[in-house]
Amino acid sequence: MGELLEHIDSPSALKNLSVKQLKELADEIRQFITAGVSQTGGHLASNLGVVELTIALHYVFDFAQDRLLWDVGHQCYTHKLLTGRREDFRKLRQNDGASGFPNPAESPYDQFSVGHAGTGIATALGMALGAQHTGSDERIVAFVGDASIVNGLSFEALNNIGLLKRQMLIVLNDNSMAIDATQGAVARFFSRVRLSHTYEDMKKRSHEMLEQMGPFGRSMEGAVARIKKSLRMTFSPSHLFEALNIPYFGPVDGHDLESLVDVFQAMARLDHPAILHAYTEKGHGFAPAGNDPSRFHSTGPFEVNGDDVETQPRKRSFTDAFGEALVELARDDQRIVAITAAMAEGTGLKDFAQQFPDRFYDVGIAESVAVDMAAGMAKKGLRPVVCIYSTFVQRCFDQIFQEVSLQGLRVVFCVDRAGFVGGDGPTHHGVLDIGYFRMLPDICLIAPSDEGELRKALAFAFQCDNASVIRYPRESVMVTGHEGPSFELGKSRAIKSSPNSVAAIVAYGAMVTRAVKAAAILAAEGVEVDVIDARFAKPVDQEIIALCMSKPVITVEDHSLAAGFGSAVLEEAHRAASGTDKALRITTLGGPDRFVPHALRDRQLQQAGLDAVSIADAVRRVIKPSDARI
Amino acid sequence: MGELLEHIDSPSALKNLSVKQLKELADEIRQFITAGVSQTGGHLASNLGVVELTIALHYVFDFAQDRLLWDVGHQCYTHKLLTGRREDFRKLRQNDGASGFPNPAESPYDQFSVGHAGTGIATALGMALGAQHTGSDERIVAFVGDASIVNGLSFEALNNIGLLKRQMLIVLNDNSMAIDATQGAVARFFSRVRLSHTYEDMKKRSHEMLEQMGPFGRSMEGAVARIKKSLRMTFSPSHLFEALNIPYFGPVDGHDLESLVDVFQAMARLDHPAILHAYTEKGHGFAPAGNDPSRFHSTGPFEVNGDDVETQPRKRSFTDAFGEALVELARDDQRIVAITAAMAEGTGLKDFAQQFPDRFYDVGIAESVAVDMAAGMAKKGLRPVVCIYSTFVQRCFDQIFQEVSLQGLRVVFCVDRAGFVGGDGPTHHGVLDIGYFRMLPDICLIAPSDEGELRKALAFAFQCDNASVIRYPRESVMVTGHEGPSFELGKSRAIKSSPNSVAAIVAYGAMVTRAVKAAAILAAEGVEVDVIDARFAKPVDQEIIALCMSKPVITVEDHSLAAGFGSAVLEEAHRAASGTDKALRITTLGGPDRFVPHALRDRQLQQAGLDAVSIADAVRRVIKPSDARI
Repeated sequence: MGELLEHIDSPSALKNLSVKQLKELADEIRQFITAGVSQTGGHLASNLGVVELTIALHYVFDFAQDRLLWDVGHQCYTHKLLTGRREDFRKLRQNDGASGFPNPAESPYDQFSVGHAGTGIATALGMALGAQHTGSDERIVAFVGDASIVNGLSFEALNNIGLLKRQMLIVLNDNSMAIDATQGAVARFFSRVRLSHTYEDMKKRSHEMLEQMGPFGRSMEGAVARIKKSLRMTFSPSHLFEALNIPYFGPVDGHDLESLVDVFQAMARLDHPAILHAYTEKGHGFAPAGNDPSRFHSTGPFEVNGDDVETQPRKRSFTDAFGEALVELARDDQRIVAITAAMAEGTGLKDFAQQFPDRFYDVGIAESVAVDMAAGMAKKGLRPVVCIYSTFVQRCFDQIFQEVSLQGLRVVFCVDRAGFVGGDGPTHHGVLDIGYFRMLPDICLIAPSDEGELRKALAFAFQCDNASVIRYPRESVMVTGHEGPSFELGKSRAIKSSPNSVAAIVAYGAMVTRAVKAAAILAAEGVEVDVIDARFAKPVDQEIIALCMSKPVITVEDHSLAAGFGSAVLEEAHRAASGTDKALRITTLGGPDRFVPHALRDRQLQQAGLDAVSIADAVRRVIKPSDARI
Repeated sequence: MGELLEHIDSPSALKNLSVKQLKELADEIRQFITAGVSQTGGHLASNLGVVELTIALHYVFDFAQDRLLWDVGHQCYTHKLLTGRREDFRKLRQNDGASGFPNPAESPYDQFSVGHAGTGIATALGMALGAQHTGSDERIVAFVGDASIVNGLSFEALNNIGLLKRQMLIVLNDNSMAIDATQGAVARFFSRVRLSHTYEDMKKRSHEMLEQMGPFGRSMEGAVARIKKSLRMTFSPSHLFEALNIPYFGPVDGHDLESLVDVFQAMARLDHPAILHAYTEKGHGFAPAGNDPSRFHSTGPFEVNGDDVETQPRKRSFTDAFGEALVELARDDQRIVAITAAMAEGTGLKDFAQQFPDRFYDVGIAESVAVDMAAGMAKKGLRPVVCIYSTFVQRCFDQIFQEVSLQGLRVVFCVDRAGFVGGDGPTHHGVLDIGYFRMLPDICLIAPSDEGELRKALAFAFQCDNASVIRYPRESVMVTGHEGPSFELGKSRAIKSSPNSVAAIVAYGAMVTRAVKAAAILAAEGVEVDVIDARFAKPVDQEIIALCMSKPVITVEDHSLAAGFGSAVLEEAHRAASGTDKALRITTLGGPDRFVPHALRDRQLQQAGLDAVSIADAVRRVIKPSDARI
């Protein structure tokens, strides 16, 4: 660890440093983050891009009193290091270390536990209104990336900024790069500004501005007016923000600490909302990340060899398997188009995008319009597949309800990162999708248990008469060899079945591999259980319901127990048993009724009782001793 | 009916009319709509505002081939009259008449069955992209109001318009009035334009434009350029749209049929996306609606006496009761602030807004930011209550998940229009909220059964340590006299209970009044049943679970059966019965697994088996003959 960083236990320790020392500190932080993430994995490129902005903010503001709100939040590593979390950072994203996102439970310097985009300005607006009500003079700063500002929620917040009659600063960190390159008109607008000025221009501009500010004693109001005049450009985003009546300043060089400190000192005095537009470079100061920011957006552990980097080879994932399967299907069906919302790489669509550039759409972090575009395209006879992480599907549930499901349109939703997601933690778990989807009439809910199943599921989904959803986890995919038949609507697949079995484990999706292992554990004890791969959460196979009438059934799902697959089985079984005295012995295993913190995915599953050993335990508790043939 | 309208059975019948006749037709339509809505109730003011725009669109375009997409859709009455649905219109919103929204099942001239705002541009973009893929030259028109364009989804769509390399026309119908007055910077921006020009100016401007267009033979491209030049104003919204790189034309007078026809003829020839900004007057041509558009946004039947109007007095609703209860609580607690998304009147907040203008926020049709503002304010110690219809809560589920629930913030959600909504139909039913909410840890789900309960529920919700949700239907509220004790977390209220009863009806919210009636029906037959007002869907009262162990239980909810309250009871009961041989006899009554069409709410409840007679029937089917003491 560097000498300066070593002594920073809270932001107040920054205040006595010279700007020269701040620059040294920035170098130390960059090295610390790179070394740390090389060990633990994590978000690298975006964090290296905002080191100077974060230092300058903490240098000028006092976030013990003032409030700093991060949008998305994965770029908060420097902030964590400056606010007393150096040690926790060594176990970043591990169950006893720092979370990868802001987290008020970790530090009073964090306001919201976030991981979804577009919330920064909106929640900051709420806090600023709260301060307005209570007469507090704390200053509110929202830190927002260019990828987030195109989200509908950001726009709704910008449109309502006029409610504020007080200070609120929006720092727009523009690295012209979302998870994938930012899409859309706003992004083009920003890049027009960027293209019209070289980096050198911008540096010169910052210096001109500083000269105009003159000695500190001068009226800040005047200085602000001069900065504003100086910084406004012909093709400036000021058009956009001024149409929304929000004073716009910039662009400034987001790596020039000296200028940033001065600009923030001036802007901290404003008594009205304002935007500062700063350009930064993703991966700044670490050549491999600067050259390939997409690769280092969210990385596993890696090893640095000079400027070169070696990462551990990843195991083949459900995502990889999906990407390949889709490309194959798309070759034979020209109507297939793929849509994502800034998750092309994460959802396995890179290959599709390269092979079928005219049939690939990335709308930026804007899940709602991704769904509506798919609805429109389905209406015109195309076969859209929409690829979004489960947690972000929550952003477009209403569009799936009204614009797709209610219309009976054939859109395929490929829901990646379904279930527990490991290190990203509670903002990113995808454990609610079965619950909200299964309330939609006629929708078809599918989960594949391995690679062969995934291919069959995808082929089937494109044949569905209605909307369909395929969910799979962030996990390596197995080729189990239990090759089953093609998918048939609402039909499960018996992996292991015997009239002599004492219970049936009915598993959904990736839980099937755990169920198979649990059955093996039990078989070794002489306990025979059936293993059913449910394949469908809607419609539920009537054979599963028939099983419920004849023996104890244990449902297993990587999803909230409330309202999930097991709940659907209970509903159907009770309908079937209605009017009988049948004792239904159904046990549902799934995620608990609390937020599950960051840790390894396997640990999360284990704590939820969803690993093979726990499933076997649950079966033992259910079957009566007399049932076991031991 | 007017002479012209009588002969319009399809839009093609318009084509032979002169512009003078079109004007006469506009008058006839206005009279027809006013007379019709006075009988059936419906949306009046907005429909009277768009008569000329709709006629002009159908006159110029051919929507048998071209596509017209309505945003929100409640302004589609003229469109329905021109597309062969005059007769269905007489039973508007009734179960055998026309739906109040566009509906592809009714007519090939309708594209999407919609009722939520902000979808128009997004789905039109999808259809235009579909046409681009398939090489179709159909023209796509999205008809969008100024209240919808501030929605995040509209913005996300505008930001992605650049994907299009073909025609798409956005007609921006600007009546400076959402359900309530449109909020926010974009609205102020529009009104700045409006204020800077008188209506007369605008008319003159249209005429100048027409002169510049010259004879029809002239090059349309040139004419378009001239119109554009002529119509652009100093304070024009072109800033906003040009920042988004979308060519902007206007504003034009949306009631000047002659100009509109010419402008559309010019704009139909564009081979790229464009926006036409038209000013209209809500309620135009019908003085009572023009003077008080809010009253005539969505009205019941009324009687016209000259320029005066008499409407049937409404019965006191849950909404009224909520509005009053909130004002009372807010008098004693300065921290209470209320937030809505263009539903101030509909959610009963008018009185609150008048009494506490500084504590009332209407963010426009922007549910997501409404929730995030509440989250920020709760963070600052305020006690926000967010008032949104159940169906529109679907728009902000992710914000409630992450920015409220995950943070453990104390925000009260008052979910109006929960359950079946009657005439508005499937886009507006609020039958999914229990399902998605109950997956959130620690959230408190409440439903009051009558006015006394609502007051107690609200007082309780403000005391909750976590987020809470109170749901109630679009229905008259009862003062039953079954006055119960104050609310206690997770405790139900026994209305009728006896150890000798043969079954228990456990009802949630407004279903309690039906359950009480059902019990009376059964009692008359000598069948004694308990009636429990569940009060909470989360946490479910353990006494309800204990009941499930001892007798048949029938749950009743005005919500989708899947994942609803009954489903929660099943889950808990099975957990409790686990390891026993207890035969659980639980029957769940609720909404069916299909979309329920528009009709009277009572009829919808009856068809779902949720009226008193049906509930009594369900009890009879459940109890064994030996249980009944007859």
